[in-house]
Amino acid sequence: MASQESGTAMSPKITGELLRQLRHAMRNCKYFSEPIQAYIVPSGDAHQSEYIAPCDCRREFICGFNGSAGTAIVTEQHAAMWTDGRYFLQASQQMDNNWTLMKMGLKETPSQEDWLISILPENSRVGVDPWIIAADQWKNMSKALISAGHSLVAVQDNLIDAVWADRPERPSTQLRTLGLEYTGISWQDKINTLRAKMTERKITWFVATALDEIAWLFNLRGADIEYNPVFFAYTIVGMNTIRLFVDLKRLSDPALRAHLQLDSPSKPELSIQTFPYESVYTELQAICAALGPKDKVWICDKASCALTQVIPKSHRTPIPYTPLCLSKAVKNTTEIQGMKMAHIKDAVALCELFAWLEKEIPKGIVTEISAADKAEELRSQQKDFVGLSFPTISSVGPNGAIIHYRPLPETNRTLTTNEVYLIDSGAQYIDGTTDVTRTVHFGTPSAFEKECFTYVLKGHIAVSAAIFPNGTKGHLLDSFARAALWESGLDYLHGTGHGVGCFLNVHEGPCGISYKTFADEPLEAGMIVSDEPGYYEDGSFGIRIENVVLVVPAQPKYNYRNRGSLTFEALTLVPIQVKMMNTELLTQKERDWVNEYHRKCREVVGAELERQGRKEGLEWLIRETQPIV
Amino acid sequence: MASQESGTAMSPKITGELLRQLRHAMRNCKYFSEPIQAYIVPSGDAHQSEYIAPCDCRREFICGFNGSAGTAIVTEQHAAMWTDGRYFLQASQQMDNNWTLMKMGLKETPSQEDWLISILPENSRVGVDPWIIAADQWKNMSKALISAGHSLVAVQDNLIDAVWADRPERPSTQLRTLGLEYTGISWQDKINTLRAKMTERKITWFVATALDEIAWLFNLRGADIEYNPVFFAYTIVGMNTIRLFVDLKRLSDPALRAHLQLDSPSKPELSIQTFPYESVYTELQAICAALGPKDKVWICDKASCALTQVIPKSHRTPIPYTPLCLSKAVKNTTEIQGMKMAHIKDAVALCELFAWLEKEIPKGIVTEISAADKAEELRSQQKDFVGLSFPTISSVGPNGAIIHYRPLPETNRTLTTNEVYLIDSGAQYIDGTTDVTRTVHFGTPSAFEKECFTYVLKGHIAVSAAIFPNGTKGHLLDSFARAALWESGLDYLHGTGHGVGCFLNVHEGPCGISYKTFADEPLEAGMIVSDEPGYYEDGSFGIRIENVVLVVPAQPKYNYRNRGSLTFEALTLVPIQVKMMNTELLTQKERDWVNEYHRKCREVVGAELERQGRKEGLEWLIRETQPIV
Repeated sequence: MASQESGTAMSPKITGELLRQLRHAMRNCKYFSEPIQAYIVPSGDAHQSEYIAPCDCRREFICGFNGSAGTAIVTEQHAAMWTDGRYFLQASQQMDNNWTLMKMGLKETPSQEDWLISILPENSRVGVDPWIIAADQWKNMSKALISAGHSLVAVQDNLIDAVWADRPERPSTQLRTLGLEYTGISWQDKINTLRAKMTERKITWFVATALDEIAWLFNLRGADIEYNPVFFAYTIVGMNTIRLFVDLKRLSDPALRAHLQLDSPSKPELSIQTFPYESVYTELQAICAALGPKDKVWICDKASCALTQVIPKSHRTPIPYTPLCLSKAVKNTTEIQGMKMAHIKDAVALCELFAWLEKEIPKGIVTEISAADKAEELRSQQKDFVGLSFPTISSVGPNGAIIHYRPLPETNRTLTTNEVYLIDSGAQYIDGTTDVTRTVHFGTPSAFEKECFTYVLKGHIAVSAAIFPNGTKGHLLDSFARAALWESGLDYLHGTGHGVGCFLNVHEGPCGISYKTFADEPLEAGMIVSDEPGYYEDGSFGIRIENVVLVVPAQPKYNYRNRGSLTFEALTLVPIQVKMMNTELLTQKERDWVNEYHRKCREVVGAELERQGRKEGLEWLIRETQPIV
Repeated sequence: MASQESGTAMSPKITGELLRQLRHAMRNCKYFSEPIQAYIVPSGDAHQSEYIAPCDCRREFICGFNGSAGTAIVTEQHAAMWTDGRYFLQASQQMDNNWTLMKMGLKETPSQEDWLISILPENSRVGVDPWIIAADQWKNMSKALISAGHSLVAVQDNLIDAVWADRPERPSTQLRTLGLEYTGISWQDKINTLRAKMTERKITWFVATALDEIAWLFNLRGADIEYNPVFFAYTIVGMNTIRLFVDLKRLSDPALRAHLQLDSPSKPELSIQTFPYESVYTELQAICAALGPKDKVWICDKASCALTQVIPKSHRTPIPYTPLCLSKAVKNTTEIQGMKMAHIKDAVALCELFAWLEKEIPKGIVTEISAADKAEELRSQQKDFVGLSFPTISSVGPNGAIIHYRPLPETNRTLTTNEVYLIDSGAQYIDGTTDVTRTVHFGTPSAFEKECFTYVLKGHIAVSAAIFPNGTKGHLLDSFARAALWESGLDYLHGTGHGVGCFLNVHEGPCGISYKTFADEPLEAGMIVSDEPGYYEDGSFGIRIENVVLVVPAQPKYNYRNRGSLTFEALTLVPIQVKMMNTELLTQKERDWVNEYHRKCREVVGAELERQGRKEGLEWLIRETQPIV
C-alpha cells in the first residue's frame, strides 16, 4: 500500500457537482416518502470492517478525504466532515471549500448531533444507510435527534451509490480453503462449539456479520479487502441449520465444495445452505417470522442497524463480543505453531533487510518508500507469503513522529546515518500474521534519542515480562508500559497493544492493552497481542518497539486462591538495536531480559537464516545479538 | 463503633409476624390503587449515603441482617435478601428461616430481576419506595420487569415504616459552622463558582441531594450519621435563588443564622430561603412547573428516583458527578493545611498507641476491642477531635484476613507476640479526616509474613512514588500496587485507594485507585486519596499498609506537550514497621523511599510529640524510624 498510494496527491477533490447531485437525491421521492434534510455518510462497510474495499469508500468519494476514520454529513446548505487529530492536516488538504472540517477532540467542535440540531429546520428528517451504521450508533443518534424534534430515517438505497457513476464492483476474489494443518480445528467442530455455547445460554440463532469471524468459522480465506484475508459474507447458525450468504459464483471450485461438504454433508445439521450475499435480509426476516416466544437471537451490538432491527427486540440478545470472536482470540496449538513459524520467517526477512540497509544507506539512495518495498520483496521470498498485513510505516527522522505515517512521494525522505529510522510492518503468511516495529540508527544516535529509546524499551519489557493473575484484563497492564516514560515526564498518545489474528486481521478483538479500552475481555493463555509502547518527539524523531506476544501460563512461587498466573512469550524474534540503548539506565533484570531475548533470536532465527543460506542476514543477526554487560 | 457494636448478637431476628404485617400492607389499598405482589427494600437512605442513620436501617429491620450492603425483596410467598461475599456468613446468622439468602457473585444465584420474573404471577406489580432507590437502579429494574410483562410501582408511603412500631426519629443534631480558617472558601464563593459552572453549561437549576456535598457547600457540619459529620438536607440552587431544605428547628442558633446570613443577606442572589426538609418534593415540582423551554436542571444520576422524576425528562441533565463533588475533591490550601495538621495529631496518637501496646501486650490482657478503645481514647486527647471516621478494624492473626472485620465480643482475640496485628482506623478532627492502616508484629514475624509484607510495601511505594501525567485517572495506577504481589503469584481482592474528605466522609468520590472503578475522574493536584494495598492469607493473617496521600505537582526532567506531571505526598506520617520487612527484597530506590519517609515522620511528628510532652511515643518513634541500610 505504501507504494500503491504514491499516486494519491494531496490536492482537494472538487465536490460541487457531486454535492448538487446528492442534494437532488435527498429531495427525490424515488428513495423515500418525504425528502430528507440531511444525509449521514459514515466511513464503514456493512460489516463494520476496519479496512474497507474500494466500493465501500463512500465517505472518501463524496468529500475527498481518504483517512481511515471520518463521518460526512450533508444538508441542503452545509457539508461537514468529522475526523480526529491524526487527520486534521490530511483532511484539510483533501477537501475543497464546500466542506467544513470538524476537528474532533477540540472543545469548540460540536458533536454531529449538536451540529445537526443547531442548523436543521424544525421537524427535520435525517437519513442514513442502515447497513453502514452500527446498531449502537443508530440508537444514540436517533435518541438525540428525537429529543430535539427531528427523526433519523433509514434510507435503504445508498444515496452515494446513486450518484457514484463509476463505483467499483464489490470484490469477489477466489476463496482459499485451510486444512487442519493450519487451523487445528475443523469448521464442523467450530460449529459444534458454537452450538454448545448457544445451548448453554438458551440461544436459538446466531447471526455472524464480522468478516474475520466468518472466515475463521469456515476455515476459509479471501482477498476482498486489502491486507485482510477475508471475503464478503454473512452467516446465520441455528441449532440444526447453517446458512452462508456469499456471492454464489465463488462456490464452484470442487475443492471448496468438498471442504464445505456442500454436495455430501456428513450430518444433516452440518449441511450448509448457501444463499446469495444480498439475501441475508429477507432470509433473516423469514427466520424471525417463525421464532417461538422463547427464541433468542444473538447478534453483535456493533452489527449493522439494518440487520439488527430485523430481529424483534424481544428476541434480540445483543452482545459486545460474539462467541466466534472469543473463540478465535484463543489460538489453538496448531495456530500457535503456525504463528511461531510465520514470525521466524518474518524475522529472516527483517534481518536481511537491516543487513541490506546498512550496506545501501551510505550510498544515499534508499528512501522510506524503497526501504518499504525492499521489506516487502524480502518477505515475499518466504514460504506461504500471501501479502502485507497492513501498509508499511517506513519513516525517517521527523516523519517517525507522525504515528500513522505512510510514506508518499511528496513526504518521502532518504535514509541516512544521521536520523532515526522507524519501520512498522507485517505480513500475511498462510500459517500466520505478523506485525513488528523496530527503531534503529545507522550512525550515532544522540543522548536524548537513546534516553527516550531506553524508556520505551523499559516499558516494552515491563509488559512483556509482567506476571499477572488469570482473568486480568489487558488494560490493567497499560501503565506498566508507561511508568518509565512518566517518571521522566514523557508519554505516548496511543494504546500499548492490540489482538492479532492468525492469518486474519492484524487488529482483532476482544483483547488488547490500552488505557482507552475498558470493554476488553480478560487475557487468557493462547491469546496473542502486540506490545508496542513508543515515544514521539514532534518534528524530530519517533520511537516504537513492537513485538507480537503470546499469553502463556506462568509459574510464580505462590498461587493465590488457585487462580493461576499468566505472562507473555515473544513471538517476534528480531533484535532490538543495542546501539539505541543507554544500558546504564537499565536494571540488571532488564539487561538479563534483553540478553535472553537476543539469545533466543540468535538461536531460533539464526538456524533458519542458516537453513536458507542467508549469510548477510545471519552475520547481522549475530552481531546485533551480542550480550550487553 | 467497635465497642458499641459489642451488644450485637449473631442470633437470627424473628421475622414471621413482621412479614405478615408487611404482606398485609402490600394488599392494603390505603397505599395504592391496586395491591402489589412484591416489595423491594434497598439498603440506602434518600441521599444514597454509604453510612445510614438508624431510622433508615429498614432492610435490617425487616430481615435482621445489618451489613452495609444488601437488598431484601418480599412477595406473598417468599422473602429473599441479596448480599455479597463479605457478608454470607453474617447474613445467614442474622436471618431466620423465613428468609432465603441470595449469595451475589455465585453463578447459581439469580439477579433480583430474574428471580422476580421467575416467581411472580403474570402482570404483577412490584413496589419500591422511590426515595431510597437511585434513578439509574429504578431504570434498570423497571426495564427488566416491563419486558417480562410486570411493572415497577413507586409506593410513596414506605411500607417498612408502616409496620415499624418503634422506628427511631430522624436525627436532627446541632449544626456546627466552619469559619474560613477551616474551609478556605466562603459558602458564598462556592455558590458563585457553582453558578459560573452552571452558566458555562447553560444549566438553570442544580439539585443537591448528597449530604456531604451540602455540608461542604454551606461550610456546615452535623452529626446525623455516625462517623459522617453531615446533616439531613437538600439544596436547590438557581441563578438568583438558594433553597435549603432542612429541619427548621435547627436554624435557631444566632451564630448559625449569621453564618448563613439568614437575617441580613449581603446580596439578594445570596439570600438563602429555608424550607422544611420534607418540602423538597413540592418545591421542586413548583420550580419545574415554571421552567422555560430551554431550562436545564442538573441532578446526579445516583440521586433518588423520586426527586429525579420530578424533573421532566426534556429538562433533566443527569451527571455522574456534580460540580460540588468535583470542587470538593480538590482541596484548597487551607484544607490541605488542616488535613496535614489532623494527620500529625493522628500520628501522635498512634505513636502513643504502639508504645502502649508494646508495653501492655506481654501482660496478655490487650484485646482487639481494648486496643481499638485505647486508640480512640488517645485520639480523643488531640485538639479538635470530633469522633472516629469509621469503625476501627482491629484484628489479630486470622481475623486480619477478614477484610471488613470489626471485633465483636464473640470474635475478640488477644494481642500476643506470636501473631500479626492489623489496625485500620481514623478520626474526624475539625481540621481534617484521617484513615491509616498499619500492620505490626510484637514478636518475631515468620519469613512468609515478612515476604508478603514486603511485596505489599513495594506496591504501596510504587503508587506513592509514581509520577504520572496530569489528567491520569486513578485506576491507571492500580496495577502498580499489585505488580510485586503478582510477580509472586499473590494479589488482594479490593481496590487500592479511595477519595478522602476534609472533615467529611472518609470515602468520597469522584477519584480513587481501583481496577474496578472506570467512572473515576482524573487525578488533580489537591485531591486526596488513600494508598492501601494488602495481602490476606485466609485463616492466618492479614496485611495492609495504608497512607492518605495528597496529589501534588511533580517536576520530572521533561514536560511532554506541556501536560505537567503529578505525584503523591504522604499526609499520614506513622512509621511502617521495619521488623516486618525483608529489606533484601527491596531495591535501593525503595529503601531510600522508606528512609526518607521515616525521616519525615521523625522530624514532623517527633516535634509534635515533644511539644505535647509524650515521651513514650517519641521514644517509640525514634526507634522505629532508624534508617535501614
